[in-house]
Amino acid sequence: MTARTDTRTRILRKGAQLIHARGYNATGLQEILTGAGVPKGSFYFYFKSKEDFGLQLIDYYAAFIGGIFSRFLDDTSIGPVERIGRLFDFYEDFFTQKSCGLGCPIGNLSLELGDTSGRFRGRLSAAIESLIAKLESCLMDMKREGAIPSSVDTAEAARFIFHGFEGAILHMKVTRNIGPIRSFRKCVLEYLHAPRVDARNK
Amino acid sequence: MTARTDTRTRILRKGAQLIHARGYNATGLQEILTGAGVPKGSFYFYFKSKEDFGLQLIDYYAAFIGGIFSRFLDDTSIGPVERIGRLFDFYEDFFTQKSCGLGCPIGNLSLELGDTSGRFRGRLSAAIESLIAKLESCLMDMKREGAIPSSVDTAEAARFIFHGFEGAILHMKVTRNIGPIRSFRKCVLEYLHAPRVDARNK
Repeated sequence: MTARTDTRTRILRKGAQLIHARGYNATGLQEILTGAGVPKGSFYFYFKSKEDFGLQLIDYYAAFIGGIFSRFLDDTSIGPVERIGRLFDFYEDFFTQKSCGLGCPIGNLSLELGDTSGRFRGRLSAAIESLIAKLESCLMDMKREGAIPSSVDTAEAARFIFHGFEGAILHMKVTRNIGPIRSFRKCVLEYLHAPRVDARNK
Repeated sequence: MTARTDTRTRILRKGAQLIHARGYNATGLQEILTGAGVPKGSFYFYFKSKEDFGLQLIDYYAAFIGGIFSRFLDDTSIGPVERIGRLFDFYEDFFTQKSCGLGCPIGNLSLELGDTSGRFRGRLSAAIESLIAKLESCLMDMKREGAIPSSVDTAEAARFIFHGFEGAILHMKVTRNIGPIRSFRKCVLEYLHAPRVDARNK
């Protein structure tokens, strides 16, 4: 890592941490720079404005969460049903360790910034699509292996799982309880497995 | 309506409108008061602080959304499956009219304020539970009428629907497209109807 990328990464990492906890509008640039130990002049070397920083931060979060999704969902050494199960196991542990706070940074920024600018929306939308695509790829493997019937619309099912997950995280965040995540997981498995019976009756 | 409640309602209504569009932190008290045509001194007659205003605003939103839910879900002149369908019809039209922006004010505030104070969390959590209870009551009617099997856990299914709805709204907000709401609705109906088949096979 060069000094240049190192400074940029330090700013993004500290910004990611503070904005995850407090939101984009409530976090000042100065706070991020002080926390990262970087002078203000350096910030404008890497980022044109706070908005430009926000856009790069969305990519940073998307790559981070995408890495977690891939670690579990792309692990073809185990079956696709087990892979999605392990992803949920990971998040259940992760959120429990974080006292069920913070939530999903992409979800948080979607609601906070979704109405502010088309640039934010475009970047958040791309981040969400990339995560849904990873879920869909796993559902397609389930279909190929006969774990879910060929009648399942994997694109729609992947969106539905993503939507339910974001909503469950939102609910967890206000109750500070892992219950909504567990309840969501149980219902997703019911949803994924139920159509098999339909297919048998065709 | 007395002058007193009228002033309070005017402040809440203008605050609800501005905060729905921009978020809690990005909206200043002065902006709300100017918009409502109310002097600053009056604000502190009705609200102890911005936080106290935020708490009363959550109740205001919860009553407003609860009213919409009740209008459709409590209409026993039609069957419970149609009732939930009409609620989704309403929201599809409503969001389309709003250019798929704004989203759900309770969802927005949950992600923006979920990590700030236990008071906000408590009030948001109560708002969410009251909406889930309305969904559950409709699911219980479906169960009584045999529209869904007796094996459905209505409390969990109601949460799952609420979670999926909040996530779909979040996704709609960043894509500015009604697609996620339509896709969610289709999957919910699949989810609600699928267990019937399971029950037949018992």
